[in-house]
Amino acid sequence: MQEPKLSREQLSELLPSHFPEFVHPASGITIEEVSYGACRIRQTFSPLMLRPGGTISGPTMMGLTDFTMYVALLSAIGWVPMVVTSQLNINFLRKPQQSDLIAAAKLMKLGQRLAFGEVAVRSAGADDIVAHATLTYAIPSQR
Amino acid sequence: MQEPKLSREQLSELLPSHFPEFVHPASGITIEEVSYGACRIRQTFSPLMLRPGGTISGPTMMGLTDFTMYVALLSAIGWVPMVVTSQLNINFLRKPQQSDLIAAAKLMKLGQRLAFGEVAVRSAGADDIVAHATLTYAIPSQR
Amino acid sequence: MQEPKLSREQLSELLPSHFPEFVHPASGITIEEVSYGACRIRQTFSPLMLRPGGTISGPTMMGLTDFTMYVALLSAIGWVPMVVTSQLNINFLRKPQQSDLIAAAKLMKLGQRLAFGEVAVRSAGADDIVAHATLTYAIPSQR
Amino acid sequence: MQEPKLSREQLSELLPSHFPEFVHPASGITIEEVSYGACRIRQTFSPLMLRPGGTISGPTMMGLTDFTMYVALLSAIGWVPMVVTSQLNINFLRKPQQSDLIAAAKLMKLGQRLAFGEVAVRSAGADDIVAHATLTYAIPSQR
Repeated sequence: MQEPKLSREQLSELLPSHFPEFVHPASGITIEEVSYGACRIRQTFSPLMLRPGGTISGPTMMGLTDFTMYVALLSAIGWVPMVVTSQLNINFLRKPQQSDLIAAAKLMKLGQRLAFGEVAVRSAGADDIVAHATLTYAIPSQR
Repeated sequence: MQEPKLSREQLSELLPSHFPEFVHPASGITIEEVSYGACRIRQTFSPLMLRPGGTISGPTMMGLTDFTMYVALLSAIGWVPMVVTSQLNINFLRKPQQSDLIAAAKLMKLGQRLAFGEVAVRSAGADDIVAHATLTYAIPSQR
Repeated sequence: MQEPKLSREQLSELLPSHFPEFVHPASGITIEEVSYGACRIRQTFSPLMLRPGGTISGPTMMGLTDFTMYVALLSAIGWVPMVVTSQLNINFLRKPQQSDLIAAAKLMKLGQRLAFGEVAVRSAGADDIVAHATLTYAIPSQR
Repeated sequence: MQEPKLSREQLSELLPSHFPEFVHPASGITIEEVSYGACRIRQTFSPLMLRPGGTISGPTMMGLTDFTMYVALLSAIGWVPMVVTSQLNINFLRKPQQSDLIAAAKLMKLGQRLAFGEVAVRSAGADDIVAHATLTYAIPSQR
């Protein structure tokens, strides 16, 4: 089992300073666990995430899956914050509860220039997957 | 050429009251054009959309494509605000300029329970597509 | 742990008679394992699958992922052969070896009318995933 | 309007010799039109494509969209037969007729190493799209 290049503590310190608009004290994002090429992130529930019908908005979950894969990728390549999403495919499977969301990401392929992985999102405390995403990230060549 | 079930004016009035967290005076969303099953939406540039490297964040464009398809779908079925995204596939093709984004959506299939279409996002005034998405929406049966 | 509605033996008997063009003695398809909502299928290597460069053709792997999810779905709903693929997203991650392919499918959501799952394809005897797919199947209402 | 790097005639001659398993006199593939980054391909109907329920099999349409994008890409970069599909997303929208299929591809992005485009498949003589795909191709660096 390979060690992550960046620990949970390191990532929790670095990310808010580089992504203040997404990771800040009020954003409700907590990195709960990090291993090499994988991580688990909690997004605290807020009524602001709701849309008519009482479901959590799609963009909330899209942003969460994107960020979770970003953290999983950094755990495997170290601090290369300029990696960018090149492709996201997300399926919304069930209506989430009005509670925290837990997103778990896992890299399946780490190449020189592309990384690919999947993210499963669940309502905290529940087993069922509410959203599943696969993502491709592009890794800049000049790192 | 079929008439849209909701005009640009009607949608511009209805949406802010139902999606105040996404469509409000400060959100920079303008519905520029609506026809049956299609629409064009402008998102005003804001430095808040930027992420390290000077590119517009992925979630900004994900949210925009999701909303644009939503409007295109309502233009074809009328006011059924509870339609929900079931699948989104987005490809980020080029780095957008630091300017407004223009998203154009077009329905390709409108079934009883599912609608499918595509959205192209461009930087205002430019021809190149910066992001392309296909989306499936689920239409509630009890409408 | 729920029992599958159709066993490996039942599926191995039913499928060739219904899909003679895809599952026949010469097609090299073997159902190796079936559990509720999951299965593992082997496709025997044939030089006919190769394309220039010595890689196994994309359509070979597309067809294999589609069929593997089909079997996983039938294991959960029983003999409803008219289910049809409504969406497939496949990522080709590595060049497969010139050997048998092993595809493993797992359902993540089984609804009344839609089922969603993922399939991982590996070269026989290897750990790395060569292709990963997510699929949505539509289930006819009149079953 | 840029000229294609390979004409319809050139492609119709080169492809059968390099892809004999897919493009051969009996495969029913005809390149009908080629322009720079775009093409239209006809696949002659054969009862072998059918699956239970009388619909054309998913893999038939997957293979057709893959091949059509391949031809559109070669029309823009010339004879680089080793380009490989890295990602395919296909949505099946309607049941096709039991007639020829017409697939039209169009590149949206041509980079140094990646190309992205879309393919629409229709039944010959009909307007409705029966399947829509987006594809990413990887272009080898040593071309």
